[in-house]
Amino acid sequence: MSGATDFPAWSAAALDRVEGALDRLVPADAPAQLGEAMRYGVLEGGKRVRALLVLAAAEAVRGQEAAALRAACAVELIHAYSLIHDDMPCMDNDVLRRGKPTVHVRYGEALAMLAGDAMQGLAFEVLTPDTAEVPAALQARLCALLARAAGHAGMAGGQAIDLASVGRALGEAELRHMHRCKTGALLHGSVMMGAACGAADSAALAALSDYGWAIGLAFQVVDDILDVTQASETLGKTAGKDAQDNKPTYVSLMGLEAARRHAGELHEQARAALVRSGLADTRWLDALASRIVNREH
Amino acid sequence: MSGATDFPAWSAAALDRVEGALDRLVPADAPAQLGEAMRYGVLEGGKRVRALLVLAAAEAVRGQEAAALRAACAVELIHAYSLIHDDMPCMDNDVLRRGKPTVHVRYGEALAMLAGDAMQGLAFEVLTPDTAEVPAALQARLCALLARAAGHAGMAGGQAIDLASVGRALGEAELRHMHRCKTGALLHGSVMMGAACGAADSAALAALSDYGWAIGLAFQVVDDILDVTQASETLGKTAGKDAQDNKPTYVSLMGLEAARRHAGELHEQARAALVRSGLADTRWLDALASRIVNREH
Repeated sequence: MSGATDFPAWSAAALDRVEGALDRLVPADAPAQLGEAMRYGVLEGGKRVRALLVLAAAEAVRGQEAAALRAACAVELIHAYSLIHDDMPCMDNDVLRRGKPTVHVRYGEALAMLAGDAMQGLAFEVLTPDTAEVPAALQARLCALLARAAGHAGMAGGQAIDLASVGRALGEAELRHMHRCKTGALLHGSVMMGAACGAADSAALAALSDYGWAIGLAFQVVDDILDVTQASETLGKTAGKDAQDNKPTYVSLMGLEAARRHAGELHEQARAALVRSGLADTRWLDALASRIVNREH
Repeated sequence: MSGATDFPAWSAAALDRVEGALDRLVPADAPAQLGEAMRYGVLEGGKRVRALLVLAAAEAVRGQEAAALRAACAVELIHAYSLIHDDMPCMDNDVLRRGKPTVHVRYGEALAMLAGDAMQGLAFEVLTPDTAEVPAALQARLCALLARAAGHAGMAGGQAIDLASVGRALGEAELRHMHRCKTGALLHGSVMMGAACGAADSAALAALSDYGWAIGLAFQVVDDILDVTQASETLGKTAGKDAQDNKPTYVSLMGLEAARRHAGELHEQARAALVRSGLADTRWLDALASRIVNREH
Protein backbone atom coordinates (compact mmCIF):
# COMPACT_ATOMS: atom_id res chain seq x y z
CA MET A 1 0.00 0.00 0.00
CA SER A 2 2.69 2.47 0.98
CA GLY A 3 4.15 1.91 -2.47
CA ALA A 4 1.31 3.82 -4.16
CA THR A 5 2.31 7.24 -5.43
CA ASP A 6 -1.06 8.75 -6.24
CA PHE A 7 -4.30 8.86 -4.31
CA PRO A 8 -6.49 6.94 -6.79
CA ALA A 9 -4.02 4.05 -6.77
CA TRP A 10 -3.63 4.17 -2.99
CA SER A 11 -7.36 4.32 -2.31
CA ALA A 12 -8.14 1.57 -4.84
CA ALA A 13 -5.63 -0.74 -3.16
CA ALA A 14 -6.89 0.23 0.30
CA LEU A 15 -10.51 -0.40 -0.70
CA ASP A 16 -9.58 -3.81 -2.07
CA ARG A 17 -8.06 -4.74 1.26
CA VAL A 18 -11.09 -3.45 3.20
CA GLU A 19 -13.64 -5.22 1.00
CA GLY A 20 -11.62 -8.42 1.18
CA ALA A 21 -11.33 -8.22 4.94
CA LEU A 22 -15.02 -7.46 5.44
CA ASP A 23 -15.89 -10.39 3.21
CA ARG A 24 -13.78 -12.66 5.44
CA LEU A 25 -14.93 -11.16 8.74
CA VAL A 26 -18.69 -10.88 8.26
CA PRO A 27 -20.04 -14.41 8.58
CA ALA A 28 -22.03 -15.91 5.75
CA ASP A 29 -23.20 -18.69 8.03
CA ALA A 30 -24.78 -16.76 10.89
CA PRO A 31 -28.11 -18.43 11.59
CA ALA A 32 -31.47 -17.89 9.97
CA GLN A 33 -30.56 -15.25 7.33
CA LEU A 34 -28.84 -13.09 9.95
CA GLY A 35 -25.49 -13.43 8.22
CA GLU A 36 -27.08 -12.75 4.86
CA ALA A 37 -28.71 -9.57 6.16
CA MET A 38 -25.45 -8.44 7.78
CA ARG A 39 -23.52 -8.98 4.58
CA TYR A 40 -26.21 -7.24 2.54
CA GLY A 41 -25.94 -4.26 4.88
CA VAL A 42 -22.18 -3.85 4.83
CA LEU A 43 -20.62 -5.46 1.75
CA GLU A 44 -20.32 -3.99 -1.72
CA GLY A 45 -21.49 -0.55 -0.86
CA GLY A 46 -20.50 2.78 0.44
CA LYS A 47 -17.56 5.04 -0.15
CA ARG A 48 -15.68 3.63 2.87
CA VAL A 49 -14.60 7.11 3.89
CA ARG A 50 -14.19 5.97 7.48
CA ALA A 51 -12.11 2.93 6.58
CA LEU A 52 -9.87 5.06 4.37
CA LEU A 53 -9.44 7.57 7.20
CA VAL A 54 -8.31 4.78 9.52
CA LEU A 55 -5.81 3.47 6.99
CA ALA A 56 -4.53 6.91 5.99
CA ALA A 57 -4.03 7.93 9.63
CA ALA A 58 -2.30 4.62 10.33
CA GLU A 59 0.10 5.22 7.43
CA ALA A 60 0.81 8.73 8.70
CA VAL A 61 2.04 7.25 12.00
CA ARG A 62 3.59 4.13 10.41
CA GLY A 63 1.01 2.03 12.25
CA GLN A 64 0.58 -1.73 12.32
CA GLU A 65 -1.18 -2.73 9.13
CA ALA A 66 -3.13 -5.73 10.45
CA ALA A 67 -4.51 -3.72 13.36
CA ALA A 68 -5.40 -0.80 11.11
CA LEU A 69 -7.24 -3.06 8.68
CA ARG A 70 -9.30 -4.53 11.51
CA ALA A 71 -10.02 -1.05 12.84
CA ALA A 72 -11.10 0.02 9.35
CA CYS A 73 -13.55 -2.90 9.16
CA ALA A 74 -14.84 -2.21 12.66
CA VAL A 75 -15.73 1.43 11.92
CA GLU A 76 -17.44 0.39 8.69
CA LEU A 77 -19.48 -2.18 10.62
CA ILE A 78 -20.56 0.49 13.11
CA HIS A 79 -21.40 2.91 10.30
CA ALA A 80 -23.35 0.25 8.39
CA TYR A 81 -25.30 -0.84 11.46
CA SER A 82 -26.25 2.79 12.15
CA LEU A 83 -27.56 3.17 8.60
CA ILE A 84 -29.66 0.01 8.89
CA HIS A 85 -31.28 1.21 12.10
CA ASP A 86 -31.57 4.79 10.87
CA ASP A 87 -33.42 3.65 7.73
CA MET A 88 -36.08 1.75 9.67
CA PRO A 89 -39.69 2.93 9.69
CA CYS A 90 -39.52 4.16 13.29
CA MET A 91 -36.56 6.40 12.36
CA ASP A 92 -36.12 7.90 8.87
CA ASN A 93 -38.26 5.33 7.06
CA ASP A 94 -35.99 5.20 4.03
CA VAL A 95 -36.50 2.52 1.40
CA LEU A 96 -33.45 3.18 -0.75
CA ARG A 97 -29.78 3.14 0.27
CA ARG A 98 -26.79 3.03 -2.06
CA GLY A 99 -29.27 2.43 -4.85
CA LYS A 100 -30.61 -0.77 -3.26
CA PRO A 101 -33.67 -1.52 -1.11
CA THR A 102 -32.79 -0.90 2.53
CA VAL A 103 -32.20 -3.89 4.80
CA HIS A 104 -35.62 -3.81 6.47
CA VAL A 105 -37.31 -3.63 3.06
CA ARG A 106 -35.33 -6.66 1.94
CA TYR A 107 -35.35 -8.75 5.15
CA GLY A 108 -38.09 -7.32 7.35
CA GLU A 109 -37.82 -5.01 10.31
CA ALA A 110 -37.06 -7.59 12.97
CA LEU A 111 -34.11 -9.10 11.13
CA ALA A 112 -32.87 -5.64 10.16
CA MET A 113 -32.79 -4.59 13.79
CA LEU A 114 -31.00 -7.81 14.77
CA ALA A 115 -28.52 -7.50 11.91
CA GLY A 116 -27.63 -3.99 13.10
CA ASP A 117 -27.30 -5.21 16.67
CA ALA A 118 -25.08 -8.11 15.60
CA MET A 119 -22.94 -5.82 13.46
CA GLN A 120 -22.21 -3.57 16.44
CA GLY A 121 -21.13 -6.63 18.39
CA LEU A 122 -19.09 -7.89 15.45
CA ALA A 123 -17.19 -4.60 15.31
CA PHE A 124 -15.81 -5.32 18.77
CA GLU A 125 -15.13 -8.96 17.87
CA VAL A 126 -13.11 -7.79 14.91
CA LEU A 127 -11.03 -5.56 17.21
CA THR A 128 -10.28 -8.38 19.63
CA PRO A 129 -8.87 -11.30 17.62
CA ASP A 130 -7.80 -14.35 19.55
CA THR A 131 -4.30 -14.09 18.06
CA ALA A 132 -1.19 -12.00 18.55
CA GLU A 133 -2.04 -10.15 15.32
CA VAL A 134 -3.09 -7.13 17.39
CA PRO A 135 -1.36 -6.56 20.76
CA ALA A 136 -3.79 -6.69 23.71
CA ALA A 137 -3.14 -3.11 24.78
CA LEU A 138 -3.95 -1.88 21.28
CA GLN A 139 -7.09 -4.05 21.19
CA ALA A 140 -8.27 -2.36 24.37
CA ARG A 141 -7.42 1.12 23.08
CA LEU A 142 -9.26 0.53 19.80
CA CYS A 143 -12.34 -0.79 21.65
CA ALA A 144 -12.27 2.26 23.92
CA LEU A 145 -12.09 4.70 21.00
CA LEU A 146 -14.78 2.92 18.99
CA ALA A 147 -17.20 2.54 21.89
CA ARG A 148 -16.96 6.23 22.74
CA ALA A 149 -17.35 7.32 19.12
CA ALA A 150 -20.40 5.11 18.61
CA GLY A 151 -22.18 5.55 21.91
CA HIS A 152 -24.31 8.01 23.84
CA ALA A 153 -21.71 10.79 23.71
CA GLY A 154 -21.05 10.14 20.02
CA MET A 155 -23.09 8.76 17.16
CA ALA A 156 -26.08 7.40 19.10
CA GLY A 157 -26.30 10.62 21.11
CA GLY A 158 -26.26 12.66 17.92
CA GLN A 159 -29.06 10.59 16.50
CA ALA A 160 -31.11 11.24 19.63
CA ILE A 161 -30.55 15.00 19.25
CA ASP A 162 -31.49 14.69 15.59
CA LEU A 163 -34.69 12.90 16.52
CA ALA A 164 -35.61 15.58 19.03
CA SER A 165 -34.79 18.41 16.62
CA VAL A 166 -37.25 17.59 13.82
CA GLY A 167 -39.48 20.60 13.22
CA ARG A 168 -37.63 22.66 15.84
CA ALA A 169 -35.49 25.72 15.08
CA LEU A 170 -31.84 25.07 15.99
CA GLY A 171 -29.11 27.66 16.25
CA GLU A 172 -25.76 27.04 14.59
CA ALA A 173 -24.16 25.97 17.87
CA GLU A 174 -26.87 23.37 18.47
CA LEU A 175 -26.68 22.14 14.89
CA ARG A 176 -22.90 21.86 15.16
CA HIS A 177 -23.19 19.93 18.42
CA MET A 178 -25.67 17.53 16.85
CA HIS A 179 -23.44 16.83 13.87
CA ARG A 180 -20.29 16.69 15.95
CA CYS A 181 -21.96 13.77 17.72
CA LYS A 182 -23.96 12.19 14.94
CA THR A 183 -21.44 12.12 12.10
CA GLY A 184 -18.32 13.80 13.44
CA ALA A 185 -17.59 11.45 16.32
CA LEU A 186 -17.18 8.34 14.16
CA LEU A 187 -15.17 10.14 11.47
CA HIS A 188 -12.96 11.64 14.19
CA GLY A 189 -12.81 8.25 15.87
CA SER A 190 -11.67 6.67 12.60
CA VAL A 191 -8.70 9.03 12.47
CA MET A 192 -7.85 8.42 16.11
CA MET A 193 -8.11 4.63 15.73
CA GLY A 194 -5.73 4.76 12.82
CA ALA A 195 -3.39 6.96 14.82
CA ALA A 196 -3.56 4.52 17.75
CA CYS A 197 -2.05 1.80 15.54
CA GLY A 198 1.32 3.53 15.46
CA ALA A 199 3.52 5.86 17.43
CA ALA A 200 2.60 9.53 17.57
CA ASP A 201 3.50 12.10 20.20
CA SER A 202 0.78 14.04 21.97
CA ALA A 203 1.20 17.10 19.74
CA ALA A 204 0.71 15.00 16.63
CA LEU A 205 -2.30 13.28 18.19
CA ALA A 206 -3.83 16.64 19.12
CA ALA A 207 -3.36 17.88 15.55
CA LEU A 208 -4.88 14.68 14.11
CA SER A 209 -7.80 15.13 16.50
CA ASP A 210 -8.34 18.68 15.17
CA TYR A 211 -8.15 17.31 11.64
CA GLY A 212 -10.71 14.65 12.51
CA TRP A 213 -13.23 17.10 13.94
CA ALA A 214 -12.79 19.49 11.02
CA ILE A 215 -13.35 16.87 8.31
CA GLY A 216 -16.13 15.34 10.42
CA LEU A 217 -18.07 18.58 10.37
CA ALA A 218 -17.17 19.32 6.75
CA PHE A 219 -18.60 15.92 5.81
CA GLN A 220 -21.98 16.86 7.23
CA VAL A 221 -22.04 20.36 5.78
CA VAL A 222 -21.36 18.86 2.35
CA ASP A 223 -24.03 16.21 2.99
CA ASP A 224 -26.56 18.96 3.64
CA ILE A 225 -25.47 20.77 0.48
CA LEU A 226 -25.75 17.62 -1.63
CA ASP A 227 -29.19 16.87 -0.22
CA VAL A 228 -30.55 19.99 -1.93
CA THR A 229 -28.34 20.08 -5.03
CA GLN A 230 -28.22 16.46 -6.20
CA ALA A 231 -30.75 14.03 -7.57
CA SER A 232 -31.60 10.77 -5.80
CA GLU A 233 -29.92 8.66 -8.46
CA THR A 234 -26.59 10.43 -7.96
CA LEU A 235 -26.83 10.12 -4.17
CA GLY A 236 -28.05 6.52 -4.21
CA LYS A 237 -30.58 7.55 -1.58
CA THR A 238 -33.69 9.69 -1.47
CA ALA A 239 -32.72 13.33 -2.09
CA GLY A 240 -34.50 16.27 -0.50
CA LYS A 241 -35.38 14.13 2.54
CA ASP A 242 -34.14 16.69 5.03
CA ALA A 243 -36.38 19.49 3.79
CA GLN A 244 -39.27 17.05 3.39
CA ASP A 245 -38.80 15.86 6.96
CA ASN A 246 -38.43 19.48 8.14
CA LYS A 247 -34.99 18.73 9.54
CA PRO A 248 -32.63 21.60 10.33
CA THR A 249 -29.54 21.59 8.07
CA TYR A 250 -26.61 23.89 7.39
CA VAL A 251 -28.31 24.94 4.19
CA SER A 252 -31.64 25.74 5.83
CA LEU A 253 -29.80 27.60 8.59
CA MET A 254 -27.21 29.63 6.70
CA GLY A 255 -28.20 29.30 3.03
CA LEU A 256 -26.44 27.42 0.26
CA GLU A 257 -23.61 29.85 -0.43
CA ALA A 258 -22.65 30.35 3.20
CA ALA A 259 -22.75 26.57 3.71
CA ARG A 260 -20.32 26.18 0.80
CA ARG A 261 -18.02 28.81 2.29
CA HIS A 262 -18.19 27.04 5.65
CA ALA A 263 -17.17 23.74 4.06
CA GLY A 264 -14.18 25.54 2.53
CA GLU A 265 -13.17 26.98 5.91
CA LEU A 266 -13.34 23.58 7.55
CA HIS A 267 -11.21 22.16 4.74
CA GLU A 268 -8.58 24.83 5.46
CA GLN A 269 -8.69 23.99 9.18
CA ALA A 270 -8.15 20.32 8.40
CA ARG A 271 -5.15 21.06 6.14
CA ALA A 272 -3.63 23.40 8.72
CA ALA A 273 -3.96 20.68 11.35
CA LEU A 274 -2.07 18.23 9.16
CA VAL A 275 0.79 20.70 8.76
CA ARG A 276 0.75 21.28 12.53
CA SER A 277 0.96 17.52 13.18
CA GLY A 278 4.59 17.50 12.11
CA LEU A 279 4.05 14.03 10.59
CA ALA A 280 6.08 13.34 7.48
CA ASP A 281 3.48 11.62 5.36
CA THR A 282 -0.04 13.02 5.63
CA ARG A 283 -0.71 13.10 1.91
CA TRP A 284 -3.53 10.52 1.99
CA LEU A 285 -5.22 12.33 4.87
CA ASP A 286 -4.88 15.52 2.86
CA ALA A 287 -6.37 13.86 -0.23
CA LEU A 288 -9.25 12.44 1.83
CA ALA A 289 -10.09 15.89 3.18
CA SER A 290 -10.28 17.17 -0.40
CA ARG A 291 -12.43 14.26 -1.46
CA ILE A 292 -14.80 14.80 1.47
CA VAL A 293 -15.26 18.47 0.64
CA ASN A 294 -15.36 18.15 -3.14
CA ARG A 295 -17.42 14.97 -3.49
CA GLU A 296 -20.58 15.03 -5.57
CA HIS A 297 -22.42 12.18 -3.84
CA MET B 1 -18.14 -8.92 49.89
CA SER B 2 -16.04 -11.95 50.54
CA GLY B 3 -16.91 -11.49 54.20
CA ALA B 4 -20.52 -12.64 53.63
CA THR B 5 -21.24 -16.09 55.01
CA ASP B 6 -24.64 -16.79 53.51
CA PHE B 7 -25.99 -16.34 50.01
CA PRO B 8 -28.74 -13.82 50.79
CA ALA B 9 -26.21 -11.53 52.49
CA TRP B 10 -23.66 -12.00 49.72
CA SER B 11 -26.13 -11.40 46.92
CA ALA B 12 -27.67 -8.37 48.65
CA ALA B 13 -24.23 -6.78 49.01
CA ALA B 14 -23.32 -7.72 45.43
CA LEU B 15 -26.56 -6.25 44.08
CA ASP B 16 -25.93 -3.02 45.98
CA ARG B 17 -22.56 -2.69 44.32
CA VAL B 18 -23.99 -3.45 40.88
CA GLU B 19 -26.88 -1.00 41.20
CA GLY B 20 -24.54 1.67 42.51
CA ALA B 21 -22.06 1.12 39.70
CA LEU B 22 -24.77 1.14 37.01
CA ASP B 23 -26.15 4.34 38.48
CA ARG B 24 -22.71 5.94 38.14
CA LEU B 25 -21.90 4.48 34.72
CA VAL B 26 -25.14 5.05 32.82
CA PRO B 27 -25.21 8.76 32.01
CA ALA B 28 -28.12 10.86 33.17
CA ASP B 29 -27.02 13.67 30.86
CA ALA B 30 -26.93 11.90 27.50
CA PRO B 31 -28.70 14.19 25.04
CA ALA B 32 -32.38 14.51 24.27
CA GLN B 33 -33.84 11.95 26.71
CA LEU B 34 -31.42 9.27 25.50
CA GLY B 35 -29.82 9.02 28.94
CA GLU B 36 -33.24 8.94 30.58
CA ALA B 37 -34.38 6.10 28.32
CA MET B 38 -31.15 4.17 28.92
CA ARG B 39 -31.48 4.53 32.67
CA TYR B 40 -35.16 3.57 32.51
CA GLY B 41 -34.18 0.44 30.62
CA VAL B 42 -31.44 -0.78 32.91
CA LEU B 43 -31.74 0.69 36.41
CA GLU B 44 -33.93 -0.58 39.24
CA GLY B 45 -35.05 -3.70 37.57
CA GLY B 46 -34.24 -7.28 36.93
CA LYS B 47 -32.82 -10.04 39.01
CA ARG B 48 -29.27 -9.32 37.82
CA VAL B 49 -28.55 -13.02 37.41
CA ARG B 50 -25.82 -12.25 34.88
CA ALA B 51 -24.11 -9.69 37.08
CA LEU B 52 -24.19 -12.09 40.03
CA LEU B 53 -22.70 -14.83 37.87
CA VAL B 54 -19.82 -12.53 36.92
CA LEU B 55 -19.16 -11.60 40.54
CA ALA B 56 -19.51 -15.15 41.84
CA ALA B 57 -17.15 -16.51 39.18
CA ALA B 58 -14.68 -13.73 39.93
CA GLU B 59 -14.74 -14.63 43.61
CA ALA B 60 -14.19 -18.28 42.78
CA VAL B 61 -10.93 -17.34 41.03
CA ARG B 62 -10.02 -14.53 43.45
CA GLY B 63 -10.45 -12.06 40.59
CA GLN B 64 -9.91 -8.32 40.56
CA GLU B 65 -12.98 -6.71 42.09
CA ALA B 66 -13.01 -3.48 40.09
CA ALA B 67 -12.73 -5.35 36.80
CA ALA B 68 -15.43 -7.84 37.83
CA LEU B 69 -17.81 -5.06 38.81
CA ARG B 70 -17.35 -3.39 35.44
CA ALA B 71 -17.86 -6.72 33.68
CA ALA B 72 -21.03 -7.28 35.72
CA CYS B 73 -22.40 -3.91 34.61
CA ALA B 74 -21.42 -4.54 31.00
CA VAL B 75 -23.34 -7.83 30.78
CA GLU B 76 -26.37 -6.22 32.38
CA LEU B 77 -26.21 -3.42 29.81
CA ILE B 78 -26.11 -5.98 27.00
CA HIS B 79 -28.98 -7.93 28.53
CA ALA B 80 -31.05 -4.79 29.07
CA TYR B 81 -30.46 -3.53 25.51
CA SER B 82 -31.55 -6.90 24.14
CA LEU B 83 -34.79 -6.73 26.13
CA ILE B 84 -35.54 -3.22 24.88
CA HIS B 85 -35.10 -4.27 21.26
CA ASP B 86 -36.84 -7.60 21.81
CA ASP B 87 -39.91 -5.86 23.24
CA MET B 88 -40.36 -3.59 20.24
CA PRO B 89 -43.38 -3.97 17.94
CA CYS B 90 -41.33 -5.47 15.10
CA MET B 91 -40.12 -8.22 17.47
CA ASP B 92 -42.20 -9.50 20.40
CA ASN B 93 -44.39 -6.40 20.72
CA ASP B 94 -44.44 -6.54 24.52
CA VAL B 95 -45.84 -3.63 26.48
CA LEU B 96 -44.95 -4.79 29.98
CA ARG B 97 -41.51 -5.61 31.40
CA ARG B 98 -40.60 -5.98 35.05
CA GLY B 99 -44.06 -4.65 35.83
CA LYS B 100 -43.43 -1.35 34.01
CA PRO B 101 -44.31 -0.12 30.52
CA THR B 102 -41.58 -1.19 28.10
CA VAL B 103 -39.10 1.43 26.88
CA HIS B 104 -40.74 1.95 23.48
CA VAL B 105 -44.13 2.41 25.14
CA ARG B 106 -42.66 5.01 27.45
CA TYR B 107 -40.25 6.81 25.06
CA GLY B 108 -41.33 5.85 21.54
CA GLU B 109 -39.83 3.31 19.17
CA ALA B 110 -37.09 5.47 17.72
CA LEU B 111 -35.62 6.46 21.07
CA ALA B 112 -36.00 2.88 22.35
CA MET B 113 -33.97 1.57 19.44
CA LEU B 114 -31.31 4.24 19.97
CA ALA B 115 -31.21 3.63 23.71
CA GLY B 116 -30.57 -0.06 23.06
CA ASP B 117 -27.88 0.77 20.52
CA ALA B 118 -26.20 3.20 22.91
CA MET B 119 -26.35 0.65 25.73
CA GLN B 120 -24.48 -1.91 23.66
CA GLY B 121 -21.81 0.70 22.98
CA LEU B 122 -21.75 1.70 26.64
CA ALA B 123 -21.09 -1.90 27.66
CA PHE B 124 -17.77 -1.76 25.80
CA GLU B 125 -17.01 1.70 27.19
CA VAL B 126 -17.52 0.34 30.67
CA LEU B 127 -15.01 -2.45 29.96
CA THR B 128 -12.35 -0.04 28.70
CA PRO B 129 -11.87 2.65 31.36
CA ASP B 130 -9.22 5.24 30.71
CA THR B 131 -7.50 4.35 33.98
CA ALA B 132 -5.27 1.60 35.32
CA GLU B 133 -8.28 0.22 37.21
CA VAL B 134 -8.49 -2.65 34.72
CA PRO B 135 -5.24 -3.82 33.05
CA ALA B 136 -5.28 -3.38 29.25
CA ALA B 137 -4.91 -7.09 28.51
CA LEU B 138 -7.92 -7.85 30.72
CA GLN B 139 -9.93 -5.06 29.06
CA ALA B 140 -9.25 -6.68 25.69
CA ARG B 141 -10.14 -10.15 27.00
CA LEU B 142 -13.41 -8.96 28.50
CA CYS B 143 -14.37 -7.14 25.28
CA ALA B 144 -13.60 -10.29 23.30
CA LEU B 145 -15.76 -12.48 25.54
CA LEU B 146 -18.66 -10.03 25.64
CA ALA B 147 -18.67 -9.34 21.89
CA ARG B 148 -18.76 -13.06 21.11
CA ALA B 149 -21.50 -13.76 23.66
CA ALA B 150 -23.67 -10.91 22.39
CA GLY B 151 -23.13 -11.19 18.65
CA HIS B 152 -24.12 -13.28 15.67
CA ALA B 153 -22.81 -16.54 17.14
CA GLY B 154 -24.41 -15.77 20.50
CA MET B 155 -27.40 -13.76 21.64
CA ALA B 156 -28.22 -11.94 18.39
CA GLY B 157 -27.86 -15.18 16.43
CA GLY B 158 -30.22 -16.93 18.84
CA GLN B 159 -32.78 -14.20 18.42
CA ALA B 160 -32.59 -14.63 14.66
CA ILE B 161 -33.20 -18.38 15.02
CA ASP B 162 -36.08 -17.61 17.38
CA LEU B 163 -37.58 -15.24 14.82
CA ALA B 164 -37.35 -17.85 12.08
CA SER B 165 -38.81 -20.59 14.28
CA VAL B 166 -42.20 -19.07 15.07
CA GLY B 167 -44.93 -21.45 13.99
CA ARG B 168 -42.40 -24.07 12.89
CA ALA B 169 -41.86 -27.43 14.57
CA LEU B 170 -38.36 -27.68 16.10
CA GLY B 171 -36.67 -30.80 17.35
CA GLU B 172 -34.97 -30.80 20.73
CA ALA B 173 -31.52 -30.36 19.16
CA GLU B 174 -32.67 -27.28 17.25
CA LEU B 175 -34.42 -25.86 20.29
CA ARG B 176 -31.29 -26.42 22.37
CA HIS B 177 -29.12 -24.72 19.76
CA MET B 178 -31.46 -21.73 19.68
CA HIS B 179 -31.41 -21.32 23.43
CA ARG B 180 -27.70 -22.01 23.70
CA CYS B 181 -27.26 -18.94 21.52
CA LYS B 182 -30.14 -16.76 22.61
CA THR B 183 -29.92 -17.03 26.40
CA GLY B 184 -27.08 -19.43 27.09
CA ALA B 185 -24.27 -17.51 25.42
CA LEU B 186 -24.59 -14.42 27.61
CA LEU B 187 -25.06 -16.41 30.83
CA HIS B 188 -22.06 -18.55 29.90
CA GLY B 189 -20.18 -15.39 28.90
CA SER B 190 -20.94 -13.87 32.31
CA VAL B 191 -19.26 -16.81 34.04
CA MET B 192 -16.26 -16.66 31.70
CA MET B 193 -15.88 -12.89 32.12
CA GLY B 194 -15.84 -13.29 35.88
CA ALA B 195 -13.32 -16.11 35.52
CA ALA B 196 -11.13 -13.92 33.28
CA CYS B 197 -10.75 -11.43 36.14
CA GLY B 198 -8.57 -13.83 38.12
CA ALA B 199 -6.21 -16.72 37.72
CA ALA B 200 -7.63 -20.11 36.78
CA ASP B 201 -5.89 -22.99 35.04
CA SER B 202 -7.32 -24.43 31.85
CA ALA B 203 -9.01 -27.33 33.64
CA ALA B 204 -10.82 -24.94 35.98
CA LEU B 205 -11.81 -22.72 33.04
CA ALA B 206 -13.15 -25.73 31.13
CA ALA B 207 -15.21 -26.77 34.15
CA LEU B 208 -16.56 -23.24 34.62
CA SER B 209 -17.45 -23.22 30.93
CA ASP B 210 -19.44 -26.45 31.39
CA TYR B 211 -21.13 -24.90 34.42
CA GLY B 212 -21.99 -21.82 32.35
CA TRP B 213 -23.59 -23.78 29.52
CA ALA B 214 -25.55 -25.99 31.94
CA ILE B 215 -27.04 -23.12 33.94
CA GLY B 216 -27.56 -21.19 30.71
CA LEU B 217 -29.77 -23.90 29.33
CA ALA B 218 -31.44 -24.54 32.69
CA PHE B 219 -32.37 -20.87 32.83
CA GLN B 220 -34.32 -21.17 29.57
CA VAL B 221 -35.99 -24.46 30.45
CA VAL B 222 -37.22 -22.90 33.69
CA ASP B 223 -38.32 -19.79 31.78
CA ASP B 224 -40.45 -21.96 29.53
CA ILE B 225 -41.92 -23.73 32.55
CA LEU B 226 -42.74 -20.47 34.30
CA ASP B 227 -44.35 -19.09 31.16
CA VAL B 228 -47.09 -21.71 31.47
CA THR B 229 -47.30 -22.04 35.26
CA GLN B 230 -47.14 -18.47 36.54
CA ALA B 231 -49.39 -15.43 36.26
CA SER B 232 -48.25 -12.20 34.57
CA GLU B 233 -48.12 -10.31 37.85
CA THR B 234 -45.65 -12.78 39.35
CA LEU B 235 -43.48 -12.72 36.21
CA GLY B 236 -43.67 -8.94 35.76
CA LYS B 237 -44.23 -9.61 32.08
CA THR B 238 -47.02 -11.02 29.97
CA ALA B 239 -47.45 -14.74 30.79
CA GLY B 240 -48.48 -17.32 28.24
CA LYS B 241 -46.87 -15.27 25.45
CA ASP B 242 -44.97 -18.23 24.02
CA ALA B 243 -48.04 -20.39 23.45
CA GLN B 244 -49.98 -17.38 22.20
CA ASP B 245 -47.20 -16.56 19.73
CA ASN B 246 -46.98 -20.24 18.76
CA LYS B 247 -43.33 -20.37 19.77
CA PRO B 248 -41.64 -23.71 20.37
CA THR B 249 -40.63 -24.21 24.02
CA TYR B 250 -39.29 -27.03 26.15
CA VAL B 251 -42.75 -27.46 27.59
CA SER B 252 -44.48 -27.63 24.22
CA LEU B 253 -41.80 -30.03 23.00
CA MET B 254 -41.40 -32.43 25.93
CA GLY B 255 -44.30 -31.64 28.24
CA LEU B 256 -44.23 -29.98 31.66
CA GLU B 257 -42.99 -32.90 33.74
CA ALA B 258 -40.16 -33.86 31.39
CA ALA B 259 -39.13 -30.19 31.21
CA ARG B 260 -38.94 -30.12 35.01
CA ARG B 261 -36.83 -33.28 35.03
CA HIS B 262 -34.55 -31.79 32.39
CA ALA B 263 -34.03 -28.66 34.50
CA GLY B 264 -33.05 -30.94 37.38
CA GLU B 265 -30.54 -32.83 35.23
CA LEU B 266 -28.94 -29.60 34.05
CA HIS B 267 -28.70 -28.48 37.67
CA GLU B 268 -26.83 -31.67 38.50
CA GLN B 269 -24.48 -31.13 35.55
CA ALA B 270 -23.74 -27.62 36.76
CA ARG B 271 -22.97 -28.81 40.29
CA ALA B 272 -20.75 -31.60 39.02
CA ALA B 273 -18.81 -29.08 36.92
CA LEU B 274 -18.18 -26.94 39.98
CA VAL B 275 -16.74 -29.92 41.83
CA ARG B 276 -14.62 -30.74 38.80
CA SER B 277 -13.25 -27.18 38.67
CA GLY B 278 -11.14 -27.88 41.73
CA LEU B 279 -11.69 -24.27 42.84
CA ALA B 280 -11.89 -23.81 46.58
CA ASP B 281 -14.78 -21.42 46.82
CA THR B 282 -17.61 -22.05 44.38
CA ARG B 283 -20.40 -21.70 46.94
CA TRP B 284 -21.95 -18.59 45.35
CA LEU B 285 -21.89 -20.19 41.91
CA ASP B 286 -23.54 -23.23 43.48
CA ALA B 287 -26.18 -21.05 45.14
CA LEU B 288 -26.84 -19.22 41.89
CA ALA B 289 -27.41 -22.49 40.06
CA SER B 290 -30.00 -23.42 42.68
CA ARG B 291 -31.65 -20.06 42.44
CA ILE B 292 -31.85 -20.27 38.63
CA VAL B 293 -33.49 -23.69 38.75
CA ASN B 294 -35.78 -23.08 41.71
CA ARG B 295 -36.89 -19.51 40.98
CA GLU B 296 -40.59 -18.74 40.75
CA HIS B 297 -40.36 -15.70 38.46
